[in-house]
Amino acid sequence: MEGIVIKQLYRETEKFEGQMVKLSGWVRTVRASNAFGFIELNDGSFFKNVQVVFESDLENYKEISKLPISSSISVEGILELTPDSKQPFEIKAKNMIIEGLSQSDYPLQKKRHSLEYLRTIAHLRPRSNTFSAVFRVRSIAAYAIHKFFQERGFVYVHTPIITGSDAEGAGEMFRVTTLDLNNIPKDEKGVVDTSKDFFGKATNLTVSGQLNGETFALAFRDIYTFGPTFRAENSNTARHAAEFWMIEPEMAFADLNDDMEVAEAMVKYIINYVMENAPEEMEFFSKFIDAGLMERLNHVVNSEFGRVSYTEAVEILEKCGEKFEYPVKWGIDLQTEHERYLTEQHFKKPIFVYNYPKDIKAFYMRANEDGKTVAAADLLVPGVGEIIGGSQREERLKVLEARMDELGLNKEDYWWYLELRKYGETVHSGFGLGFERILMYLTGMSNIRDVIPFPRTTGTSEF
Amino acid sequence: MEGIVIKQLYRETEKFEGQMVKLSGWVRTVRASNAFGFIELNDGSFFKNVQVVFESDLENYKEISKLPISSSISVEGILELTPDSKQPFEIKAKNMIIEGLSQSDYPLQKKRHSLEYLRTIAHLRPRSNTFSAVFRVRSIAAYAIHKFFQERGFVYVHTPIITGSDAEGAGEMFRVTTLDLNNIPKDEKGVVDTSKDFFGKATNLTVSGQLNGETFALAFRDIYTFGPTFRAENSNTARHAAEFWMIEPEMAFADLNDDMEVAEAMVKYIINYVMENAPEEMEFFSKFIDAGLMERLNHVVNSEFGRVSYTEAVEILEKCGEKFEYPVKWGIDLQTEHERYLTEQHFKKPIFVYNYPKDIKAFYMRANEDGKTVAAADLLVPGVGEIIGGSQREERLKVLEARMDELGLNKEDYWWYLELRKYGETVHSGFGLGFERILMYLTGMSNIRDVIPFPRTTGTSEF
Repeated sequence: MEGIVIKQLYRETEKFEGQMVKLSGWVRTVRASNAFGFIELNDGSFFKNVQVVFESDLENYKEISKLPISSSISVEGILELTPDSKQPFEIKAKNMIIEGLSQSDYPLQKKRHSLEYLRTIAHLRPRSNTFSAVFRVRSIAAYAIHKFFQERGFVYVHTPIITGSDAEGAGEMFRVTTLDLNNIPKDEKGVVDTSKDFFGKATNLTVSGQLNGETFALAFRDIYTFGPTFRAENSNTARHAAEFWMIEPEMAFADLNDDMEVAEAMVKYIINYVMENAPEEMEFFSKFIDAGLMERLNHVVNSEFGRVSYTEAVEILEKCGEKFEYPVKWGIDLQTEHERYLTEQHFKKPIFVYNYPKDIKAFYMRANEDGKTVAAADLLVPGVGEIIGGSQREERLKVLEARMDELGLNKEDYWWYLELRKYGETVHSGFGLGFERILMYLTGMSNIRDVIPFPRTTGTSEF
Repeated sequence: MEGIVIKQLYRETEKFEGQMVKLSGWVRTVRASNAFGFIELNDGSFFKNVQVVFESDLENYKEISKLPISSSISVEGILELTPDSKQPFEIKAKNMIIEGLSQSDYPLQKKRHSLEYLRTIAHLRPRSNTFSAVFRVRSIAAYAIHKFFQERGFVYVHTPIITGSDAEGAGEMFRVTTLDLNNIPKDEKGVVDTSKDFFGKATNLTVSGQLNGETFALAFRDIYTFGPTFRAENSNTARHAAEFWMIEPEMAFADLNDDMEVAEAMVKYIINYVMENAPEEMEFFSKFIDAGLMERLNHVVNSEFGRVSYTEAVEILEKCGEKFEYPVKWGIDLQTEHERYLTEQHFKKPIFVYNYPKDIKAFYMRANEDGKTVAAADLLVPGVGEIIGGSQREERLKVLEARMDELGLNKEDYWWYLELRKYGETVHSGFGLGFERILMYLTGMSNIRDVIPFPRTTGTSEF
């Protein structure tokens, strides 16, 4: 008979009452006496298990009773409602087939394991409750992002991963090469001869798709990227990975206010969509990972995000009487402690801080009239701090070129970026959302390594 | 007043009849006399332009009349139906603002440009009709793929881009490193000291997410990847790029027949979704790029895909009397000419060829009983040839290990992949779809460089 998935049984239980169904999945637990036994079966389609009841009249009762955890089986049986039990229904097995016996040294036994240990078995950890929940939410949140932008007519752009442009942050980039490292070709000065490399020049892994994204915004008006980005930062923190995914929308005919509006709408959309489509997973996180999670997310969804200028924010911090590790004064880059104070203690809701000093922000951000600040806006959320960084882009060719000169950037490297300002410049804006950042926020997981299927960090490229 | 996008005017024209609307966009053409003029305006939200009629009573009539192509403007005006004209409506301008004057040397003038030339201005080509259509279809097709899998409960997995595993095809991989190429650290034997590299070992860009994907399929049952993959192949063809996007679904409790069913359903879903959601673009492709396109796609959507074993396919080719450049006999890898003969001349519809000789297929494909073939299936489509390659995976640990030994693969490198076969193995299958391959098929574009926003090929990493 045709198989069915556990999710469907949970979603349409009544339809299947008293029916024969066929399930396949992996054994999470087995308990058995001489007469009957119970198996908690999970097939990956749903967070919850199904309870299978089996009796000793089964031909293979003995083997079934002793199944090692994580063995795969198929079950044919009758669905019976169990209104007096914790679970809403169970399956009375009529026939059970062992598909694949697990070995008794299966590393994910029922006891609790540390997250650190689970990272060493990244190929098996999605079979645990925690990571089953995390990675299903990752998938659902990714889809929510596509859905949000597609429904608003944004065009999805795959900006390049390998880049020949020596953009900002070059020192922290990964080199991509096909040169034989044992035998690097050099020119007469003894310098690497990059003309011999695959692309005929030095290439790196991208740190941002924004500059490429702008070219598409100036054709399609509203676009977004969603792809992997890379930082070769040698930092071993719970918040940094060498490989992570970013979402970078870019909108023509949109100023900083429009930018903040889209960012706010997007964050609320993602949270709502995940709460609606992964209620079991979210309940699990609230119960076992982060008790304040649901309250915090509900609060975010129902708040109107605050907006405060950097200058005002600094004044608030200076006057608040709080002792910070990093002293506050106008011109500093806000640290996580400052960001969290503002959003958690002072405003008690998500806030955009806008108009940052130009010296701590990137060259492409639009200069304000005051000569000191740029039209940048970061979104700070309670519990995390910065989650989104955005800005209006400098669309005025002369102002942009002057700023690049000031910073010593080589304008020839950016010829195509500058040409956008020659052929139909418009006010335009965009922002970047670190996908793992919002996943940590959604799940309460506190280490970025635990929201990435196979994390890459300094010294770690396993699997 | 609040702006509106052109797409909305086309989709709900009647609602706006006689209304004042505000549009912003880029000028595609201007024609003007002393008394009045016409502008074709495009705002990127829609394939088609809007005709703006403006008269000499406008304050800035003279400047507007002489606007260089690609200048950006904002227009306030009344929408009037024009039942006797080619276009369904036009905007009678009441007020026009020049946002950004384009320069007169704008490279995309109205005359037709070669695709080769347009590649050199990849930052501007999305403003042309052809690339506006191509890249909107790219976005819509990408979304169709997510929608197809998410609606079926598949979990989206981001498999790693940087990989430390020295998997198949290692010779054609890009090296990723933070070592200083001018000063490579070497050990006492004079060999690169990879322990000094960022990850403490040699790492490359991924060629496939499949092996990682399998680990998730054995937890979530049905999963898919959709991400960039890389080949450092030094081949300069119209079908190969160094960086491209792949979709790799993987399904537990699914055999080769299930695999083919999902692949067929997916291809039909993508085509239907794009035809429904990009009708203007598809009409453009049929008119200007590939006259047989719509007929071919409709035929695919309405055919039941054929299924033929490799052995039967070879017999057909041997008996057909066709002269092939590459002679046919059992054991060869089918060439594009063979694939196209089968699907275009013989079957006249898409076909799966299954059960290929094991010696031309990968180590992980499931061995058939005959000892000579593996449970692999490729989908061939008219006009292109192979578009999907899939297989049932070898789930039997001993058979898999024996095959790896036979091929001289180092089993330790695959320890986690092999462990999947120890802890609850199941029948499972998957396939890979090259995203650009299907885009070429959908649009009729014949060079892969023209369906990738910023293509990376041998010697080319511009933008």
